Amino acid sequence: MKGLAMLKIGEIGWIEKDKPKCGPRDAIVKPLALAPCTSDVHTVWEGAIGERHNMILGHEAVGVVDEVGNDVKDFKPGDRVIVPAITPDWDTEAVQRGFPSQTGGVLGGWKFSNFKDGVFGEYFHVNLADSNLGHLPDSMSLEAAVMIPDMLSTGFMGAENANIEIGSSVAVIGIGPVGLSGIAGAKLRGAGRIFGVGSRPNLIKIAKKYGATDIISYKEGDTAEQILEATDGEGVDSVIVSGGGPDILIDALNIAKPGAKISNNNYFGSGFGEQDTIPLCRAGWGVGMAEKDIVTGLCPGGRVRMERLAEVITHGRMDPSLMASHVFKGFDKLEEALLLMKDKPRELVKPVVLVEE
Amino acid sequence: MKGLAMLKIGEIGWIEKDKPKCGPRDAIVKPLALAPCTSDVHTVWEGAIGERHNMILGHEAVGVVDEVGNDVKDFKPGDRVIVPAITPDWDTEAVQRGFPSQTGGVLGGWKFSNFKDGVFGEYFHVNLADSNLGHLPDSMSLEAAVMIPDMLSTGFMGAENANIEIGSSVAVIGIGPVGLSGIAGAKLRGAGRIFGVGSRPNLIKIAKKYGATDIISYKEGDTAEQILEATDGEGVDSVIVSGGGPDILIDALNIAKPGAKISNNNYFGSGFGEQDTIPLCRAGWGVGMAEKDIVTGLCPGGRVRMERLAEVITHGRMDPSLMASHVFKGFDKLEEALLLMKDKPRELVKPVVLVEE
Amino acid sequence: MKGLAMLKIGEIGWIEKDKPKCGPRDAIVKPLALAPCTSDVHTVWEGAIGERHNMILGHEAVGVVDEVGNDVKDFKPGDRVIVPAITPDWDTEAVQRGFPSQTGGVLGGWKFSNFKDGVFGEYFHVNLADSNLGHLPDSMSLEAAVMIPDMLSTGFMGAENANIEIGSSVAVIGIGPVGLSGIAGAKLRGAGRIFGVGSRPNLIKIAKKYGATDIISYKEGDTAEQILEATDGEGVDSVIVSGGGPDILIDALNIAKPGAKISNNNYFGSGFGEQDTIPLCRAGWGVGMAEKDIVTGLCPGGRVRMERLAEVITHGRMDPSLMASHVFKGFDKLEEALLLMKDKPRELVKPVVLVEE
Amino acid sequence: MKGLAMLKIGEIGWIEKDKPKCGPRDAIVKPLALAPCTSDVHTVWEGAIGERHNMILGHEAVGVVDEVGNDVKDFKPGDRVIVPAITPDWDTEAVQRGFPSQTGGVLGGWKFSNFKDGVFGEYFHVNLADSNLGHLPDSMSLEAAVMIPDMLSTGFMGAENANIEIGSSVAVIGIGPVGLSGIAGAKLRGAGRIFGVGSRPNLIKIAKKYGATDIISYKEGDTAEQILEATDGEGVDSVIVSGGGPDILIDALNIAKPGAKISNNNYFGSGFGEQDTIPLCRAGWGVGMAEKDIVTGLCPGGRVRMERLAEVITHGRMDPSLMASHVFKGFDKLEEALLLMKDKPRELVKPVVLVEE
Repeated sequence: MKGLAMLKIGEIGWIEKDKPKCGPRDAIVKPLALAPCTSDVHTVWEGAIGERHNMILGHEAVGVVDEVGNDVKDFKPGDRVIVPAITPDWDTEAVQRGFPSQTGGVLGGWKFSNFKDGVFGEYFHVNLADSNLGHLPDSMSLEAAVMIPDMLSTGFMGAENANIEIGSSVAVIGIGPVGLSGIAGAKLRGAGRIFGVGSRPNLIKIAKKYGATDIISYKEGDTAEQILEATDGEGVDSVIVSGGGPDILIDALNIAKPGAKISNNNYFGSGFGEQDTIPLCRAGWGVGMAEKDIVTGLCPGGRVRMERLAEVITHGRMDPSLMASHVFKGFDKLEEALLLMKDKPRELVKPVVLVEE
Repeated sequence: MKGLAMLKIGEIGWIEKDKPKCGPRDAIVKPLALAPCTSDVHTVWEGAIGERHNMILGHEAVGVVDEVGNDVKDFKPGDRVIVPAITPDWDTEAVQRGFPSQTGGVLGGWKFSNFKDGVFGEYFHVNLADSNLGHLPDSMSLEAAVMIPDMLSTGFMGAENANIEIGSSVAVIGIGPVGLSGIAGAKLRGAGRIFGVGSRPNLIKIAKKYGATDIISYKEGDTAEQILEATDGEGVDSVIVSGGGPDILIDALNIAKPGAKISNNNYFGSGFGEQDTIPLCRAGWGVGMAEKDIVTGLCPGGRVRMERLAEVITHGRMDPSLMASHVFKGFDKLEEALLLMKDKPRELVKPVVLVEE
Repeated sequence: MKGLAMLKIGEIGWIEKDKPKCGPRDAIVKPLALAPCTSDVHTVWEGAIGERHNMILGHEAVGVVDEVGNDVKDFKPGDRVIVPAITPDWDTEAVQRGFPSQTGGVLGGWKFSNFKDGVFGEYFHVNLADSNLGHLPDSMSLEAAVMIPDMLSTGFMGAENANIEIGSSVAVIGIGPVGLSGIAGAKLRGAGRIFGVGSRPNLIKIAKKYGATDIISYKEGDTAEQILEATDGEGVDSVIVSGGGPDILIDALNIAKPGAKISNNNYFGSGFGEQDTIPLCRAGWGVGMAEKDIVTGLCPGGRVRMERLAEVITHGRMDPSLMASHVFKGFDKLEEALLLMKDKPRELVKPVVLVEE
Repeated sequence: MKGLAMLKIGEIGWIEKDKPKCGPRDAIVKPLALAPCTSDVHTVWEGAIGERHNMILGHEAVGVVDEVGNDVKDFKPGDRVIVPAITPDWDTEAVQRGFPSQTGGVLGGWKFSNFKDGVFGEYFHVNLADSNLGHLPDSMSLEAAVMIPDMLSTGFMGAENANIEIGSSVAVIGIGPVGLSGIAGAKLRGAGRIFGVGSRPNLIKIAKKYGATDIISYKEGDTAEQILEATDGEGVDSVIVSGGGPDILIDALNIAKPGAKISNNNYFGSGFGEQDTIPLCRAGWGVGMAEKDIVTGLCPGGRVRMERLAEVITHGRMDPSLMASHVFKGFDKLEEALLLMKDKPRELVKPVVLVEE
């Protein structure tokens, strides 16, 4: 079978591999729609997770089941499925401690295009099919559905961790597709005023549709100062960090009220100095005593999560297909889509590849 | 001054009283809009809280500040304000334990038309003005604003206590104005499928606008059975109880998944038998071990709550004015509005009185 | 192999069965120590879970691994293990929702002596060995260890669900071994004053050692009234219900402060009337609005739980062996031990059977 | 009256001031026992909160009520009281948001020896007496009681914020009196294994009495590496940070399991570089996605807290008087006690001054 792979740091290409084998509780899935992620770009061109050779990329997919193991009960070949970016080993210790995305060690629930071949192949392997796959409703567009595995799950997590109360105020730093999903998530948790920090017109348009009430752009001045000014110096009740460089937590802390949560769903790809550090600001953090807690997470995976997020779309609570700014048709367009993600033209929100031409 | 009072159990009437006196931290407020509540009906015609003589009724109001005490900092005469139904004594013990609605004893935060004269007077007294009043935005319609003090605060609490996750399923039993607000609250917390249990067409119409995806009517059969059937026997993730008789928790438990929360915002005005009991069903409750927890609350009051709920309206997250089905003009229409509440015609959602003719 | 079984409702006896078969992820265990539970008595002589034929009883055991399946990684024959009373299927939906004890339906994590043969056999089967067995430290006495699977796990859960704050007050209703563990659990969560409600001298002695500061006996009058009197009419911050008849929640609600949690770990074996109901008291419950929430649970199982509870004993935080009031030696003493549990003599706390003579 | 004051940065001395005036809801208190705090040292000799002139120092006191305002109900002259270091304005906005220590702005609940004269005077002023004072039980030693206002409240908060489960593992970095109280707090929340990081023999002795199971000293090598080695590379479930320099969070993150909480109760008096930053380690923090949340707080104040902590002592749950290593008699010994705190001899735990000679 064919797959779009990372050949080595800095290089991608199509390769041939054997079709993956299916364990007794696993499934083999053929993709229906795929989406490249900024993480794929980090992985290949920044070497963010270290060297990999001939590893098929990709972790955002919906597909159709091709094969299931003997112990799989709830899925059969032909079923249309949502595949989470994160596929925990549900029968391990970290689940019992309450942290399924961390099974088998730090970020261990993240397997696709990290520890094993990703979803950018003609077929791909899913561990624990009954626990990790979600049923894909017939009525749902593939452009919407393919946002569930990572964009919605990560973005909404940002909002869920932010301790949003009905009517409280939120700032979302960064309005790429994860930040946009964070805005939608903040609205879904009942936020009142929502600041979106970003400057690209296409993204701003969606941010407003998803619930942003105020747009803050760096072009108008320091963004933290603008938010403080807009809130009479008070700051906001919650901050969701979905973008920015290694010093972005400084802004986040400075705009947070005492007692506000800083919810991070940013992948810090690099830090400062030899020690590779992420700085907090001592004063803005209230010398460590202002109850500005910093809460983190890795995209929740698993079947219940996927099926609940599908419910959000089915019942019209939000429409993620708005983010599919560039839709390609044909599996062989994957490379073009991924390179688009790398180049990140100003009008890009998220490229999607529909496998059938 | 004039006020619409409970003369004794079963009897209301207009009475004359002295204008209330203002303590150093308190305010005297003139109403702009008022709404009668089912509780007023319980209080007068069912004697639900015992005998009261010549007590001015009402606890749902927005108004304009007439006078403030010397220690009040944030409000002055002329300010337009939202007045919570529940006005806790914020400097007491129950607040420090985390239960402001219970200050000074069980349900002690409920003062208006319970321990002291309510808001159905030409003037009324508000304790701890800085802590309990909220600023009323100029742009907000009075019909919308007067829903904040009790309907939204109580209804949303039902959703907040129900442990709703993004995309999880909810059933709201009872779709009077509190239940409708519970539906809106469930949507504001991110619910996917929302069952509304009720049968009156006007209410059903609003339930759907507020987010109900399925309407269940007793006219079509046993409501619990209908919900179980619609969920393949699984039941729902959360149940909000906003209506029903003393045995309504039996239905609630029977439609709850193991692990589901039963969130009650029903005022149980009567129970069964001499011991005045509210029954749970042993089997449906999983013999007390199925993690079907029963969570309760009294309408949250206080300034932060009022101003956050105002934000919900300001930013268009929901429109409570849809519930103002009968709008009266003139303070002297209060009696008519209250009697309408008592008679509860089929098309009624909520009567509102705008004080200025 | 031999096992002590429920032959039918009302009758027990020794039977012969084939040694259980081991699935790929499972283990077969030989018991080292066993304990009968009040639940066994309910199951046999009250038919509490319905009819069962020739089902081996028991769910409290520590043992030694006899055989493991091919996919088991962390255990091997000869390993000494703690076996939880509740052995969830960790790769199912209820786990992802947060309720592992409810996998596969209401109370579905409870398999031993419910859906399959229990631990009162020469060998018994454990599903998902890596997820459900805990390593038994060499240094731990079997009398202490055998309390972990149910008594400590259930009793501590009562305290964990009770929202105990450091220094807050707790009442534990019922001081059998689960109630005693609830007292120890309340102390482990930092409770200040702890009321134990019971009257048997042996139990009272242990209650005090485990942290009870006040003992309340029905022999001195109404127990709820005594607790209210001792707290100047205020009641307590948390109530743990570990005993009592179907009307025990009435006492629990009456002694709870507004805002207090009622944490139930009682198995309600029977209710009132044809509808089999458990009554709440309308007034004591604050008409459903006093924030007296009723929280429930089923004994937490799984490996992490077992090994954490072992840590409690290893580090001397509490000594559960005090509860082993009657220690029998020899597997064939199981019947005597179970009948002792049935007869419940006044001096009994908990019988334990050490398998080796 | 006489008071021990900060004259300016770097200088202390006895000064004369008028006895403070009592507002209607306030109290004037005479000290019975006082304790200097490391914060006093920071304030004077490091200028940590900026310049202050002739401000009476101190925020740890128990005393006797000298005078109360007209609106005070629960205290009268002659009452013995515990005075919290943090005295929130309970009727302000931050309380309603859930953060009483942050009333009136960042760390605004900290008034003594910050915004107003502290407790090192012959008399001192307490705002909101009914809400902030706690009754001091007659039976309690003053050496024990004077630990409640800050040491126990801050130290226990460290444990409360650390998400400790019964039997889970904890590391406490720093075993000064706050760290020691953190160890005691971890035990009070049910921790199993507790690592205490420190090297001074007197402190180690108390750490063990309070529940530490393992002592880690920098003299034996890198402390983080020692803890990782002792836990087979896994790390701990919770970390409490009660000491260390501006880079201490790096150690904390490195020893935390994925999913572990980092609970800070350290006052970060200084940071690195011009931007005054506190660094996190990108890798040890799991690139911001390992669910190693950083939770912070300021010593909880208020009456309920004080009285609950008193219950802990009354019922023998722990004995804080062990920390009173140097007891002085006589108000005029305050200066000597404070200078001892400044010099921090190796055998010091905490100096206490009993006012009566």
